Order: sequence, then C-alpha cells, then structure tokens
Amino acid sequence: MSVTGIGEFGLIDRVTARLPQGASCLLGPGDDGAVLAAPDARVVASTDVLVEGRHFRRDWSAARDVGHRAAAANLADIAAMGATPTALLVALCMPADLDPAWAEELADGLGAEAATVGASVVGGDMSASPTLTIAVTALGDLGGRAPVVRSGARPGHVVALAGRSGYAAAGYTVLSRGFRTPKILVEAYRRPEVPYAAGAHAARLGATAMIDVSDGLLADLGHVARASGVGIDVRRDAFEVPRQMRDAAQALGVDPYSWILAGGDDHALAATFPPAVALPDPWRAVGRVTEGAGVTVDGEAYDGPTGWDHFR
Amino acid sequence: MSVTGIGEFGLIDRVTARLPQGASCLLGPGDDGAVLAAPDARVVASTDVLVEGRHFRRDWSAARDVGHRAAAANLADIAAMGATPTALLVALCMPADLDPAWAEELADGLGAEAATVGASVVGGDMSASPTLTIAVTALGDLGGRAPVVRSGARPGHVVALAGRSGYAAAGYTVLSRGFRTPKILVEAYRRPEVPYAAGAHAARLGATAMIDVSDGLLADLGHVARASGVGIDVRRDAFEVPRQMRDAAQALGVDPYSWILAGGDDHALAATFPPAVALPDPWRAVGRVTEGAGVTVDGEAYDGPTGWDHFR
Repeated sequence: MSVTGIGEFGLIDRVTARLPQGASCLLGPGDDGAVLAAPDARVVASTDVLVEGRHFRRDWSAARDVGHRAAAANLADIAAMGATPTALLVALCMPADLDPAWAEELADGLGAEAATVGASVVGGDMSASPTLTIAVTALGDLGGRAPVVRSGARPGHVVALAGRSGYAAAGYTVLSRGFRTPKILVEAYRRPEVPYAAGAHAARLGATAMIDVSDGLLADLGHVARASGVGIDVRRDAFEVPRQMRDAAQALGVDPYSWILAGGDDHALAATFPPAVALPDPWRAVGRVTEGAGVTVDGEAYDGPTGWDHFR
Repeated sequence: MSVTGIGEFGLIDRVTARLPQGASCLLGPGDDGAVLAAPDARVVASTDVLVEGRHFRRDWSAARDVGHRAAAANLADIAAMGATPTALLVALCMPADLDPAWAEELADGLGAEAATVGASVVGGDMSASPTLTIAVTALGDLGGRAPVVRSGARPGHVVALAGRSGYAAAGYTVLSRGFRTPKILVEAYRRPEVPYAAGAHAARLGATAMIDVSDGLLADLGHVARASGVGIDVRRDAFEVPRQMRDAAQALGVDPYSWILAGGDDHALAATFPPAVALPDPWRAVGRVTEGAGVTVDGEAYDGPTGWDHFR
C-alpha cells in the first residue's frame, strides 16, 4: 500500500483520526483553517523544516521518532520566547511510494510530543514530492508576559542553560559511524528531551535573552551576543562529561567538548539573567555576558566549528 | 553564486531585509519566533505547501510569481474562514545550486501578495533540499465573528462564488501545451487574483459555509456538501465563458466548462447564504443547496474529473 493508493484525502482522514486535540484548539483539522485560542491577544509563531537526508534518516529513526523530533524543534522555539506552545501545523511532502503507515506513525510522534505541553496538531497539508519533507509551524501564548528576545543580554548577566548539551550530537556521531549504542546518546538524537516549561519559567524569573540551542551551543550563543551587542564567555568546567559520552568519545576519537559546545539538536534553552536572580532547576549557570563581541570559552577563542549551517 | 556560497544565515539576512512588516507584526524575523497581534483572542491558522514540478515549474513562472501564488493559496484559506489575514511564515527548501536571487524574488512575491491584505512574512526557515519546496503557514484574525466553516450549508441556501473560476486551469493547460498566450489565462495561473475581502464580508453577511476553491469548484463544493450533509446543484449557465477562454478551449480541443467546473488554483471563494441575503459584488449566485448528497450540475451527475488529488 502506498500513499498514492489511498490518495490525499484518504491519508488526511487517516492521519487526523489519530490526532487528539488540546484545550487551545477551538476548531481542528478538516476546514480551510484551524481556530486556536490566543488568550493573550498576541500569538507567537515559528517554523522549522526537516528534510530527509539532512535532518533525519529513515534508517536511523523510526517515523514516530521523526515526529517527536520535528515537533520538539518547533515547540522549543516557542518555549525560547517565554511562551507556552498551543498548536502545531504540519506540511508533509512525501514520495508517492511511501507506506501510509509511516505518515500515520509520524503523526503519532508529532501528536505525542505536542501533548506533553498540552498542544496538538491542528492542521496541515500533504503533497507528493521526491523528497520526504516535514515543515512544522508552532504557535504559542505569552500569558501576558513580554517575549524574551535575543537582544536583551547585558554585560554582567549570567548565561544559563536548561536541558542537555552534546547528547544529540554524540548520538548523531555514533549513528554515523554505524553504531547503535550507547542507547542514551542515540535516543537523545532520535527524541530530544526539551525542558519546555523552563522557557516560560525563565520569562517569569526575568530572563533578559533566550534562545533554543538547535545549531550548536556556541553558535546559538553567538546569535544572542550579536543581537545584544555583547560578548559571551562560556566556562568549560560548567559541563560535566557524562560517563557514556566520555566512553563514546574515547572509542570514536572525538573530543567530547566538541559535542557539548558545538553540537546542536538537543534543543536545550539558553538564557541570560541579571546576576541577582537565583537560578532554580533545571537552569544552571554556564558562563557570563561580557563587554565586547563574540563567544569565547574560558576567555579564549574557540577554534573548532561552533555549529551547523544547513546549506553546508 | 549559489545559496551554498552565501550560507543559510547570509541568505536569511538578505531575504528578511526585503520583507516590510505589517501592522499586526509585533516582532518580526530574527528571533526564535515572531509575535503577532491577535486582537480577537483567537487566531486562524492554515498551511499549504508547493512542490516544484507538482505545484509550479520554474520555466513557467518567475520566482516572484511563485511567491504570489504561494502566498495567495494560504491567504485565501484564511479569507475562506471569514477572517482577515495577518501574517505568513515560510519554510523554503532549495537545491544548493539555486541562485540566491531566485529566493529573494520569491520573498518579494510573497511579501507583495501579503501586503495587499496588510499582512507580512514574519518568519520562516530555510534548508537545502534536492526538491524546491515552499511550505507556507498563514495566520488571521476573526474580528469577533464566528468562523465560517464547511458544515453550515442547509437545503434552500444559495451557493455563491466570489472570484474567477477556470482561468488558472485554462492557463495551466495553455502552458502545458507549450503556449504562452492568451496572457489573461497564463497570468491567472501565475498569479491568482483572490477576492480576499469577500471572505470577511461574507461572514458579516451571514454566510453559512465557505471554502477556498483550490482543488476544483465541484470538488471543493463536494467538501462543503459532505461536511454539511447536503447536496449542491450548480447551474452551468451561471458561468459565462469569457472570449479568450472560449478561443483557447476551441484551439486546444477542450470543453471550457471542464476548466470552470473542475479547474482549481484560482482561489475563488465559494460560500452558501440563506436565500434572504442580497448578494453584493463580487458575490454571485451559481447554484443551490439541496436535500441529499453530492454535487450535481443542472440536476445531473457530472461525468468529468471534478478536481485534483495531489498524490495522483
């Protein structure tokens, strides 16, 4: 059975039947548009696209995993604005010979990840395409707070991280060398564990800037530094290298800090806070905002790659 | 020069510099998410994807035309809910050897079409991909009105159309036979002329159901009939065949009513109204809601294809 066999509308019916709706959804799939509650009278919106061979591989990740990752990448962007995610819309382009079960399991993963924050997949579109592509738009509500943008970091502020750093990159390296373990790293690549609630929490705590770590920690802190007109210094000793990561790094001949400092795809949240703010779990200090420009590690330039460019 | 040459962030900078922002945009491109005004405290959202070779061809349409069409397809969905469009988000997947000018001109077209309704491109994502793909999400505001869904048509209601029917399909046929004229048809395919304001107007007039004609008039009215549990009968004589369409149909050996009744991509709006409603321009009656099921033409089954399935 292929998606061509059951047709566009048949597949849409099958997929939407598997998508329970969240409390913010006033009108779900099946009409020209969905209607979502936006109690704040503002809505946060973000789009991220995943392309097969570039952002995922079907031999590395099950359809359900790809759904979790696609949702997480977008929900994390909403959290990084200090907002609470409410909804996802998904454009799915797929080869005509794709098994419809793959699309259904993708939808299961998207819906399950969204459900962890009370959101749901409220709409979307499907098309045949030679390249399996998943474009997701996430919406969120600010709950009366100001959005936490990238440009508010000031010298003296503390740089803090919520969530994991380097796990997904390590998992990617493990998979790319043909291994399937350590499981904790491979699973981190397949399904990032994003501390979504830490985003709105940071906004309430007075975070001055925030970003979702998707390109790589140093690269994403570079976006904050550039937008804020400041420098950022990261302390290497703020990061403990977990045992499995250390073992994998040794076995593969990789510096584990290249995963921690430059690996993306964990979708941790990085934020800056005034120094007086006491940081509650899961936030932990990893550096400081400085005068100047650019991102340094222990006061020195970092000479490895700092992140990921999706054209290179 | 290729998109690989200037890189993801270079191209994002170039493109966003060309996108003026509308009044609803509180925070535009450059952060993890955009922030839009949603004064109604609800937001309408819809996603449509365009895939090269299936929804557009670069040898048939300039980049700017593709931008107009991609925006129109999504803005029309918002209008068909009775809402006013406020914003677009765009995920653009492109071959690494694409000329960055193509992406910039696409953005110009997206922005220009959005600007016709006071909306703007507030965010997006870019990735390399073997297949040029444009996934657009549109957002809109209901202005305190109930959304006009597909399920409200009742026997005795009038079926009305705002906008053109068959022009884009005729233009597509003309181009697929290797011709470039008549210009009015080819241009209608390249840049649909959507009566956006007629959507919110229909909601204020008391429209009971509404849909954007994208798959084909009879196919889309079929969606309304199914959702409403009614039949719909369309009068063939409600449609005058314009001279250029008649000439092109004759030259190409096509029944022009196959374009008018089954051609999609004009993004006209079709709606049903209680019979007491006086229909103002651009709305015009084209049929009636009946007891029963399915769509008929002059009381009889239509034996041609009624629309478009994107997997077939």
